[in-house]
Amino acid sequence: MKKVAVLGYGTVGSGVVEVMEQNARFIEQNVGETLEVKYIVDVRDFPDSPHADKMTKDFSIVENDPEVEIVVETIGGAGIAYEFTKRSLQAGKSVITSNKELVAKHGLELLGLAKEKNLNYLFEASVGGGIPIIRPITQCLAANRIDEVYGILNGTTNYILTEMIQNGRSFEDALKNAQALGYAEQNPAADIEGTDACRKISILSDLCYGEEVDPNEVETEGITGVTLDDVKCAASLGYRIKLLGRSVRREEGGISVYVAPHLLPETLLLSRVDGVMNGIVVRGNALGESMFYGAGAGKLPTASAVVADVMDAARHSKRRRDIGWEAASEGHLKDASELESRWYIRAALTPEEAEARYGNVVFAKAVDEEGRIAFLTEKKSGKEIFACGEAESRYRVIEG
Amino acid sequence: MKKVAVLGYGTVGSGVVEVMEQNARFIEQNVGETLEVKYIVDVRDFPDSPHADKMTKDFSIVENDPEVEIVVETIGGAGIAYEFTKRSLQAGKSVITSNKELVAKHGLELLGLAKEKNLNYLFEASVGGGIPIIRPITQCLAANRIDEVYGILNGTTNYILTEMIQNGRSFEDALKNAQALGYAEQNPAADIEGTDACRKISILSDLCYGEEVDPNEVETEGITGVTLDDVKCAASLGYRIKLLGRSVRREEGGISVYVAPHLLPETLLLSRVDGVMNGIVVRGNALGESMFYGAGAGKLPTASAVVADVMDAARHSKRRRDIGWEAASEGHLKDASELESRWYIRAALTPEEAEARYGNVVFAKAVDEEGRIAFLTEKKSGKEIFACGEAESRYRVIEG
Repeated sequence: MKKVAVLGYGTVGSGVVEVMEQNARFIEQNVGETLEVKYIVDVRDFPDSPHADKMTKDFSIVENDPEVEIVVETIGGAGIAYEFTKRSLQAGKSVITSNKELVAKHGLELLGLAKEKNLNYLFEASVGGGIPIIRPITQCLAANRIDEVYGILNGTTNYILTEMIQNGRSFEDALKNAQALGYAEQNPAADIEGTDACRKISILSDLCYGEEVDPNEVETEGITGVTLDDVKCAASLGYRIKLLGRSVRREEGGISVYVAPHLLPETLLLSRVDGVMNGIVVRGNALGESMFYGAGAGKLPTASAVVADVMDAARHSKRRRDIGWEAASEGHLKDASELESRWYIRAALTPEEAEARYGNVVFAKAVDEEGRIAFLTEKKSGKEIFACGEAESRYRVIEG
Repeated sequence: MKKVAVLGYGTVGSGVVEVMEQNARFIEQNVGETLEVKYIVDVRDFPDSPHADKMTKDFSIVENDPEVEIVVETIGGAGIAYEFTKRSLQAGKSVITSNKELVAKHGLELLGLAKEKNLNYLFEASVGGGIPIIRPITQCLAANRIDEVYGILNGTTNYILTEMIQNGRSFEDALKNAQALGYAEQNPAADIEGTDACRKISILSDLCYGEEVDPNEVETEGITGVTLDDVKCAASLGYRIKLLGRSVRREEGGISVYVAPHLLPETLLLSRVDGVMNGIVVRGNALGESMFYGAGAGKLPTASAVVADVMDAARHSKRRRDIGWEAASEGHLKDASELESRWYIRAALTPEEAEARYGNVVFAKAVDEEGRIAFLTEKKSGKEIFACGEAESRYRVIEG
């Protein structure tokens, strides 16, 4: 029997305990022994929980109990979670997490510490929730040179955009609805400003290209600027607006990483990933494009990915998974505004002015409420587009 | 350095050699040592190949060379491939394959032999070509009770159906086109009659539920009966016709597995998986539904999955992956005609007769060339549907 401690009894942490109980039979068959939650560490009281006997507020009990081999960190944030993760690893315990902020910020250091101690630090649930993506990238696509990874990485913003597209709700209405349904926090900034997607695309970049990407250096634009006018103009061109994190290998070396709303053609499979679902596309030089789709958040889906990592760590208690990346080499992260693509522009211009500034363009059938036109340009870099003058909206187009 | 032998220098085998050369740098970084193809075994002559010096017609040279640790079997079929796989394992070499026929027919025995010898027998490429699916199921979804797996498992038939749906081609025309493009064999039976999909859903069932499914016992219907009339009637109901392999956990124990054309609503992501692409949906009790999408066949995509397995075997040369299944228990495979679903029916009936026989139905706006009607029924088992009388077409509806 392997003993596990769960740090943080919030949505994901309580889901982990639930999945371990509910699927105990399958887990035991797979691992070859039972997994038992010995402690649940949380600063809050849960007197009515059936697991009250396992609750403690004192992390040092976990730290000092040699029976605990695996620690699940579902506290979130990069404060106390960072400290407890380090102390757990230093105490000889493998750590499993769903904490994208911590992995994006301190993954390099924590993976280094895990390697030094011959322990596992696993984080499948940190990107894409329950969707398998970390292992497929590191194992199944290992024979590929990965050239691009991009996707819908945040369910809250995808829900809001889907409501705007399918039901004509305004951004504000859709956000309120998302909050009422529990899809968005009362303070939704990390979602709607793109921070959450930024952390995830940073982790995917770390894994796909083997060098650390500092999320603070990733150009990040959320969806607060996307209007119903944009949704309508995009639709009249045959496109849908989705918030993407995107990371591209540059031919001259290095990569570019950014988060921004994009226009996707309705014929592209990713444009059909709706509601709170996530979809992540990976392009390899042998495989071409593959896509991974599923629930990117939520209690049980996320917990199922955490528990799969716990099982993996239990099976590999003597042999760590060789997963990790290096510090960034000089010039690894290149300016994303150098990347070329078609662009969607909505601006107060006459058609003649648009063509004079942007060259050959394709005009949307719709105009916005103020009568401003919208159009798609030919392929241009961000720098070229910004040099063409002011616009109400400027979004890249993904052709797929 | 690890030495590899490739058996069969056809499309996939030559792709394996190409990927290993082209991505040698990434492969070495990942594995920690170089992988070298020492022999290529094929009965044919390839005098102009740059690899002519590695070619041999004599498998026993591979068998008797202790330097060769990993054998790639890309011969296909269950004849000589079966013999060479057994002899390779008996000679202490791990075997990697893309051969779905062999895995579906003899996987239980070959995995048993690999286990006995503490070797790896890996077959990621046997289902979904380059799409990661075997590892995600066995590792990432390990904390789930898997309740259903289904998908578009054959690119050739999906290409033909897509041509029928999008371009109004007849089945015969679309097949000829697929043959001209190299997507279909000159003898296309294994694809269009569903045999290939049957082998793949059998392997997925083996993995998801842990007991062997004999592909000969899987009810299999191909796409030769799908007509443009059906495509048109389905479209008028908001559905698309796709060939699915499907495997469902039964509440009373056991599973049902079958291959047949289905109607999928246009709103379902899987219905948008077009052309030669594959999409596989897995439903777990914690995760919900996730989907894996990509190139299900083709030289380099399939080869990239084979090479990823080679890399895995090279890293785990002393420790085999614990992957496998048991012999089927009594009553494991249950009659698929007991499964309930809505059905699509096209038949020479009046609307009144249709309602008298099938109950509440939803009529298609279109009728076929002979004026026969089409409609969707309420949920019924296959047995109930067959008892309702003759019909031109009868396909299950997947609601997603």
